[in-house]
Formats: sequence, C-alpha cells, structure tokens
Amino acid sequence: MSKPTIGVFDSGFGGLTVLHSLLKLLPRARYVYLGDTARLPYGSKSRQTIVRYALESARFLEQQGADHLVVACNTATALALDEMRVALSIPVTGVIEPGARAVRDTLATGKDDKTAVVLATSATVQSHAYRRELGLLGIEATEKACPLLVPLVEEGWLTDPAHVSVTSEVLRLYLLEALAEAPRARALLLGCTHYPLLRGLMETTLTTLKHPMSIVDSAEATAQAVAALPGMEDVRLQAAGAETETVFYATDSIEKFERLGSVFLGRPVSGVKLLDLGG
Amino acid sequence: MSKPTIGVFDSGFGGLTVLHSLLKLLPRARYVYLGDTARLPYGSKSRQTIVRYALESARFLEQQGADHLVVACNTATALALDEMRVALSIPVTGVIEPGARAVRDTLATGKDDKTAVVLATSATVQSHAYRRELGLLGIEATEKACPLLVPLVEEGWLTDPAHVSVTSEVLRLYLLEALAEAPRARALLLGCTHYPLLRGLMETTLTTLKHPMSIVDSAEATAQAVAALPGMEDVRLQAAGAETETVFYATDSIEKFERLGSVFLGRPVSGVKLLDLGG
Repeated sequence: MSKPTIGVFDSGFGGLTVLHSLLKLLPRARYVYLGDTARLPYGSKSRQTIVRYALESARFLEQQGADHLVVACNTATALALDEMRVALSIPVTGVIEPGARAVRDTLATGKDDKTAVVLATSATVQSHAYRRELGLLGIEATEKACPLLVPLVEEGWLTDPAHVSVTSEVLRLYLLEALAEAPRARALLLGCTHYPLLRGLMETTLTTLKHPMSIVDSAEATAQAVAALPGMEDVRLQAAGAETETVFYATDSIEKFERLGSVFLGRPVSGVKLLDLGG
Repeated sequence: MSKPTIGVFDSGFGGLTVLHSLLKLLPRARYVYLGDTARLPYGSKSRQTIVRYALESARFLEQQGADHLVVACNTATALALDEMRVALSIPVTGVIEPGARAVRDTLATGKDDKTAVVLATSATVQSHAYRRELGLLGIEATEKACPLLVPLVEEGWLTDPAHVSVTSEVLRLYLLEALAEAPRARALLLGCTHYPLLRGLMETTLTTLKHPMSIVDSAEATAQAVAALPGMEDVRLQAAGAETETVFYATDSIEKFERLGSVFLGRPVSGVKLLDLGG
C-alpha cells in the first residue's frame, strides 16, 4: 500500500506549526502544503469570502492527490469546515474539535469550574465555533479576539527587549480583558496557528498577572488527532535515513514564504511553488 | 456639461481619508469609491499580485463611468500606477507624486539638508517609489516600513490611555529606527492612508523624541492635486443645499466597511454595495 498523502491548508504561514507537529508524529507520510498568502489574512474577513477562498484551496489539494485534508487554519475551520466536507470526497480534519478535546482533557483533573479562555482572530471569535465545541464538552468559554498578535509575530517582535516589551504589553491587555470576563478560567486555548510562537511570552505574562493557566495548543492537538486516524499506522515510525516528502505551494511571494515559513516550521523551507488560484 | 465622476480606489478603508479631503475641495463632483476589502491588505503582498488586484479594481471603476481615477492607496500607486495608466483610457492620479511635491514645498523654506522620512507599508517601502520620486526633486528619503500601524488603527487603539500607550511605543520605536538613519530629517511623510489617524500621536511622539518635523499627509496633497486639474472648476464650490453624490462598493463585509469607514471618512458611511471581483 502506498503511503498516504496529507494535504495541509492555511491562509498563510501559521499552518506550518501544525505541519511541524505532524512531521514529528507522522514522519513517513507525504505532505502537500498550501498557504493562500495572496489573500491572507482570513481572520478579518466575512464568512462568505472565507468559504469561497477555503473551497478553492481545498479542491486544489484534493486534485494534488491528497487522501486526507487538514485545515490548519482556525478561521477556515470555524467558518468553512462543513462546506469543505460537503465539497470534497476525502476526510477533512479541522483544528477546532481537537483543540476543544485537548482543553477537556486538561481540565478533567481539576475540581474547579470548567472554564477556558480562547484567544483567536476576529472572524474565529465572531463564529463562536470554539464556544460551541467547548460547550458540547461541558466547558464554558470566553473568546477573545486578538487582531494585533498575528502582525506582531510576523513583524518578529519576539526577541529583543524593546520590541518584546510591546508584544508583552499587548498580550497583557488582551489577557486582562479576557480574564475580567472569565476570572476562574484555568485553561488558555491558542485558537490561531500563529500563537504557538508566543507561548513562552504568554506563560511569563500569566505569571505577572498572577493567573497561571494550562496553555493548550490547537496545532499540537490537531496533529495528534490526525496521527490517531486509521491508515496512519504505517507512517508513524521514521525509517532510518528516510526523507520526509513535502511539497509547498503559496499564492504570493515565494521569497517571503520561504523566509517566514522557516520560522514557523522550525526548519528550512525551500522549493516553494507559486500557485494562482485566480484571486 | 455634466459634472465629473471621480473614481477612488483603495485596498480598504484608508482611501477614505483621501475621499474626505476630496469632498472638502470638490464637494460637487460625483464619487464612486471601491474598497477591495476581500483582498486587503495589499501592503504585505508581492508586486505581481498587487498589479492584478489593482487592474481589476481600476477597470471596474472605469466601467462605472469614472472620468478620472484616483488611486488612494500608496501600495497600489507604488507598484501598479504605470500598469493602470496603460490599461485605462481615463487619467489616473496616484498618491505618491503629490505627496513628494508637498514634501518639497515644506522643505523649500529651510536652509538645512533636504532630507525626509517616509513611513509606509512593507510593499511600498520595497518598491522605493517614494525614494525615487523624492530623489527627482532633490530630496533624500529614508523609507521605514511600519507593518503594525495599520492593525493598530483598525483595532482602534487610539484613545484610551492603556491602549494608546502601546500605539505610542510602537510609533516611538519605528521613528527611533528611522531617525537613526536620517538624523537631520525635517519632514515626515505619511505614506499610507491609514496614518493620518495617527497624526496627533506622531506629533506628541516627535516632541518626546526632541525631533520636531513637519508632517506631510499624502491624502491631503493628492486631493489638492486632483482639485487643481482642468475640468474641476465647476465642482469646487458647494451650491447651497446641494447633496454630494457618493456611491460605495466593497468586496467584503458591508457591515465592517460601514463601521470602520465612518471613522476614516469622518462622517457616516451607508448604502455600501457588495462587489465580487472574483478573487
């Protein structure tokens, strides 16, 4: 049996944090990644527009031979997962259900309220997809839109002290506003694939605010859900010397995709192909 | 003779600062405004993608009967002005040449170096369109990309003290970096139509930095250039009780365009029509 091809789709670079986790768990699968960078960010756009963009990207990956589609974009999952499942003939995994289940597992051990804070883009928050999914699991969610976090990550204000202090202050303000609404929250769900790059800074900020919480990463949880699917048994173990086969497509600047993509994936990204989806 | 129809095009809401200035100077013209909000921001995308988007938008406005096109978007002007002039049969005014001329006029009275700082998006800076245009006028330009300013304006972090202090600090860091390269600059050009909303904060920040500069607004300068064109004489004066005729199109959420647009235009925006450019 030939090894499975996993299509991974995001509006840009963020989905590479999901691919990063997939490569660790399923190193022997074949991957086709599409970043719809010409039309990013999805997070500030309307449902109608996001559905159109997501369907075009999903169909392209199916045409490239994907046996399974991972929607590694919270906004596209929140607003277009059902439409993609209807339009495609392959199974589709989004990031929201795995993220919500990981929150449930985290809160399962405690005796306190089942309350979580979800940080996400404006479109994801407006869809209330996380609140709905967590509600089904008996968890109350406060969703907080954080439109400045993606540009701060993409600007790279994560390391030197003067710039990182701005990022910390933005995080502090967003978290303060969220915790004012959910003072008893014990889990913090990263509902955007850019946010894992801010994880360390979030831990520091939560300590400063004297409000420690378990941080749950949807990207990591999604990779675990895909790895547990039937048909993935054969690609779990890395054969000695085997090369992972990954093809990258982007709808805008190859140079920027390779540069920023390497930061998100945590390894060099090269050989990216330019794709015109007609947008 | 019927009154002229002026088509105004931007990737989103920022061009409404140009329309705001046009309405003051040419209140009796007819306006058709297009915000290509489904594909914003242009500022982080490649030349090839921006040219394609700009041509689609420009052709739409010509089809709507525009006698004159104002490209109220610095990025589209920087990367696609020549292409639009070739593709259309109506005159096209961009924001960069008027902005550069306004800087020249500002610096004309002084005896110091002819040096200016230009704040703009990444794509505008990478095109070096302002440096080229200012160079033709004998002015040396330091161009500084400021990717966080547009999201800060759109997030509305402009008024209450906790949030405005973040915006101030971001401005201070960008200006510090620019002034390190151009310590003798006496003019600061706002090379993005979102930035006029930060003008007051920039003045305060420049005072804090002990580096006063004249702030030049491309939006204002562009409106003045259009008002000075032949054929605009008849629409300069506001007839008593005359209603300005303005039609708005947006390629994404009408609700968001009306809400944010009112902030940029400084008056209520309503009756916006949704347009599908196929993106």
